[in-house]
This record gives sequence, structure tokens and C-alpha cells, in this order.
Amino acid sequence: MPHPKAHAAALMASPEDAETQFYEAVRDGDLDRLMAVWADDDEVVCVHPGGSRVVGPQAVRAAFEALLSSGAIVVHPEHVKRVHAMGSAVHSVLERIDVLTADGPRTGWIVATNVYVKTSEGWRMVAHHASPGAPDEIPEITDTPSVLH
Amino acid sequence: MPHPKAHAAALMASPEDAETQFYEAVRDGDLDRLMAVWADDDEVVCVHPGGSRVVGPQAVRAAFEALLSSGAIVVHPEHVKRVHAMGSAVHSVLERIDVLTADGPRTGWIVATNVYVKTSEGWRMVAHHASPGAPDEIPEITDTPSVLH
Repeated sequence: MPHPKAHAAALMASPEDAETQFYEAVRDGDLDRLMAVWADDDEVVCVHPGGSRVVGPQAVRAAFEALLSSGAIVVHPEHVKRVHAMGSAVHSVLERIDVLTADGPRTGWIVATNVYVKTSEGWRMVAHHASPGAPDEIPEITDTPSVLH
Repeated sequence: MPHPKAHAAALMASPEDAETQFYEAVRDGDLDRLMAVWADDDEVVCVHPGGSRVVGPQAVRAAFEALLSSGAIVVHPEHVKRVHAMGSAVHSVLERIDVLTADGPRTGWIVATNVYVKTSEGWRMVAHHASPGAPDEIPEITDTPSVLH
């Protein structure tokens, strides 16, 4: 069921709420709902995979409009690593992208860093930096001994 | 002149101090000084250009050791965009990389997002996400009308 427009003004009471709305809006191709997640700050920054730095709400909106112009994207945030500080949150997310190719369904991965800050109106995104990961393997190296050894 | 080891424990009293030390350490190829910039948190995250996500201080150290193994890198942070919140700071940086090629000196650009948090010991880096920009042109799109029109 599509989200009613009234949800665009919903209070994002936590970084998780803001992140959920961000990815739902991308999956729904809902540009207004997506932009409602962003802080109203001239220096918000967005980097799409392989792309330039995009600075400011108007330019960020234009970049997402272009990204969504070929339809919604089946993206799911997974393996979230969180650093929460007072009034801010950094989420490192592996974005699973499901695509249907001529050879059947495939899974791709995007590595994204999402930064949220607490404003008087709730939590808002101030940075989204995404870059291409590996096509199949989970693009991660950790301190975990089983991976290092 | 190389930085004496004593500097590794210097108080980083602002996000700018931490960022300055980070890039100086990369230019000097000084791994200990570089790692002193990072927060001691299991979920710190580093993404090098084209690379996987690296999580945790040990894995981040190993990744920088590999990066610096072929020598120091002539990198200068430029065009910094800042979003400062209470106790945290997001810096979007265009890293200018100067390299000497067979065809003479060339300039490359890396787009990086650096996130710092205030700890009881001063400001520390919790995330560094870098991805390749354009080889010559400054990789930026802004709200500024002169760029959009």
C-alpha cells in the first residue's frame, strides 16, 4: 500500500525512523517523502555511487529526481553499524539492491554512510555518501578474527 | 620536518584539529599518528575509494597500513563543507591528490565524508568514506545558480 501524503510530515523521532523513511521513499519513488528526511541546511551533502559531490537541498533534490526517473529502486538497508553521539548518529549501511536481469534475479551491494542530526523538528539526514560495493559478495572487512585469519 | 612522536597524544580540541592531524599523518605516512585520530569504538567505519567497508579500529589500521605501504600520499583537503551539531561534525572534503606521472604532474580528486565526535579526550574520527571523483574537474554540483544554469 502506498504511503499517504500525510506521512511526509510525520515526526522522525529517532535516527532509525529517519532511515526507515529514507529507504521506503526510495523504494516507493516518492521524492517529496524522501526530501522530507533531509535537514534544511545549505551544506547537506549527497554522493551517489560513482558521482560528484552534491551540495544543498535543491541540488540534492535534483540528483534524486534524476536517480528515480527510471523508476523506484528495490533497495534494502542491511548490516547497519551505528555510532550514536549526543544529537547525532552515523549509520554505515550495506544497501542490498535487487535487480532482474536477462540472466535472472541478481543482488548488488552499495556501501553507504548516512549521517543524521537531531533538530527541533526531529531527526534529519545531513549526509548520504554511497559507493559501489562488490556485485555478489558482502563488501565488508571487520575486526572479527574469523575474517582476518 | 617529521612530527615528533609526542604529537601523537596531542589534544584534538576541535573537528578541524582532528582533520588537520588526519591529513598530515597521511602525507607523512605516519600510521600511529593517523590512528590516534580515530575513536576507540568497535563500529568506526572506513571506506577507501572503490573499496569494501572496513569496520573496527584494527581493521581500519590494517587498511591504512596497506594504503601507505607504497609511501606517503600527497593529499590536501579542499572545499570543505561543514555541518556541525552538538558534539559531532560532518565534513565533506574534496581531497586533492598530486601525482607525478610519465606525462608530468597531474591532479586527481577524491570525494570524502569525514565524521567526528567529541569524546572526553577531544575530537575523534568515527567515519571516513572516500570515493573517486573526476580526474581533473572539481567533482561538485551545488545549489549555486551559476553551476546549475
